Amino acid sequence: MKRFKCIISYDGTHFAGYQIQPNKRTVQGELERVLANMHKGEAIRIIASGRTDAGVHAYGQVIHFDSPLHLPTDGWKKALNAMLPDDIAIREIQEVDASFHARFSAVAKEYRYKIRTAVERDVFSRHYVYHFPYPLDYDAIKQALQLVKGTHDFTSFCSAKTEIEDRVRTIYEANLLFTDDGVEFQWIGDGFLYNMVRILVGTMLEIGQGKRKWDCIPSILEGKDRRLAGKTAPPHGLYLWKVAYDN
Amino acid sequence: MKRFKCIISYDGTHFAGYQIQPNKRTVQGELERVLANMHKGEAIRIIASGRTDAGVHAYGQVIHFDSPLHLPTDGWKKALNAMLPDDIAIREIQEVDASFHARFSAVAKEYRYKIRTAVERDVFSRHYVYHFPYPLDYDAIKQALQLVKGTHDFTSFCSAKTEIEDRVRTIYEANLLFTDDGVEFQWIGDGFLYNMVRILVGTMLEIGQGKRKWDCIPSILEGKDRRLAGKTAPPHGLYLWKVAYDN
Repeated sequence: MKRFKCIISYDGTHFAGYQIQPNKRTVQGELERVLANMHKGEAIRIIASGRTDAGVHAYGQVIHFDSPLHLPTDGWKKALNAMLPDDIAIREIQEVDASFHARFSAVAKEYRYKIRTAVERDVFSRHYVYHFPYPLDYDAIKQALQLVKGTHDFTSFCSAKTEIEDRVRTIYEANLLFTDDGVEFQWIGDGFLYNMVRILVGTMLEIGQGKRKWDCIPSILEGKDRRLAGKTAPPHGLYLWKVAYDN
Repeated sequence: MKRFKCIISYDGTHFAGYQIQPNKRTVQGELERVLANMHKGEAIRIIASGRTDAGVHAYGQVIHFDSPLHLPTDGWKKALNAMLPDDIAIREIQEVDASFHARFSAVAKEYRYKIRTAVERDVFSRHYVYHFPYPLDYDAIKQALQLVKGTHDFTSFCSAKTEIEDRVRTIYEANLLFTDDGVEFQWIGDGFLYNMVRILVGTMLEIGQGKRKWDCIPSILEGKDRRLAGKTAPPHGLYLWKVAYDN
C-alpha cells in the first residue's frame, strides 16, 4: 500500500460542495468514483485538508489516499486527469510517507477572496469573482485587517452552527491586494472555522463602505457573538488557495 | 419610435449561438424575450452586427432595435440588465439616428482568440480560453500573419457551407499578443466569413507547431479550397471583441 498526496484545483460552480452527499454532485464524490474505476470497483477513500462549501473554488486543495497500484506518479496524474470531469484538475501528485495526513498534518492554510469593484457587470467572471461595485475606503480596511491578525477567539466570525468548541485560531497574514478590476483578500492562518473567511470579508466590506469603523474589530472579537460581525460574503469569490505542511 | 444601439457582452458557453432557434437557448431569444416583457408582450425584433456560433463569446457585440417607450438611456440599461440572465450584459446603450443599422452600418470588426499554452490544465478558464499546451514557433506565426493581412479571397478560410458568393475580405490587423498564460490573436477586418477566424487560428497553430511552413499562406489563398487550410479551432477561445461604425 502506498500513500499519495495530490494538489487539486476545482471550479466550485457546479458542485454541491467538496464533501460527498447522496444524490449530489460533489468533488469528493467525483474523485472517489474515478479512483474506484481505476481500482476495478474497489472503494478508495480520500481525505482532504478540509471541506469547501457549494460554489467555493479551490486552487490548491490537498487530498491523500492509499492505493496498492504500481504506477509512476506521472502516470497517476495523466490517468486521473483523463478520467476526471473538466472542472477538477490534479495539479501535482506525489508518493508520501504513511504518516502524512492531508488534514492533520496541515500547518497552515491560505484562502483568497476575489472582488470586482468595477461598476460594469462582467459576464465572464460572474462565477469566479464577487461583483461589489461600490466605493471602498481601502485605508480603513487595511487598519481593520491589522486588528484581526494574531491569535483570537473567532466565535463572532464563524457560523452560529459551528460545532467545534475551540474557536481560537491564529491569522498570520491578512492582506489586501489590488488587481486589474478590483481587490483580492489574502488570508493565511493555522486554520479557519466554518464560514470564517466569508464573514471576515463581509465585515471588511462593511468597514470599507463606512457602515462600521475600522476599530470595531476588538469589540466584535470580545463579544463572541456571530450577530456582532458583518454579513457572510457569497461563496463564488472564495478560493482555498494553498495548504502548507511541515517538510 | 426611437432607435437604440446597444453594446452587449455575453458568455457563449450556455447558448446554442446568437441567432434565435426554436426550443434552444440563444442570445437573441433571451434579448427579445426581455424586450417583449418591457413592451407588454409586443414583439421587438433586434438586429445584430452578425451571428456568433454556439460557445463563441462576445465582449462587444452590437445590436439595434426600435421602441416607442420613453425612458432615459440609463433607465434602459438598468431595466435590461436587471431582467437579462447573468450571462448577457448591456455594456452601453444610446439612442441613434433611424439610419443606423447594426449590421449594414458596421465598417470593421475585431475578433480575439485566446489560447492557454501553459502545460497545466486550468479549471477556471476552461470555457474562456483554448488550452493548447504545445510549443509554438511564434516567429513563424508572425510571418504567416503578415501574409493573411490585406485584401484576399478567403474561400479557403471559410466553412465549405458558406453560402455567400463574394468571399473577398480585407484584414487590417492580424496580431499575436502575449498574455500571462499564453497568447491572444487579434483580428481586425472589414468583415469575416463563416468560421473564418477559427480556421485562420487553426492554421496558425499548425504553422506554429511546424506542421506547415509560414509561407504556405499564398498557395492556400490561391487554391480557394477549404481543404487546403488548417483545422477549425474550437469556439470557446473566440470573442467578438468590437464592432466599429462610421461616426
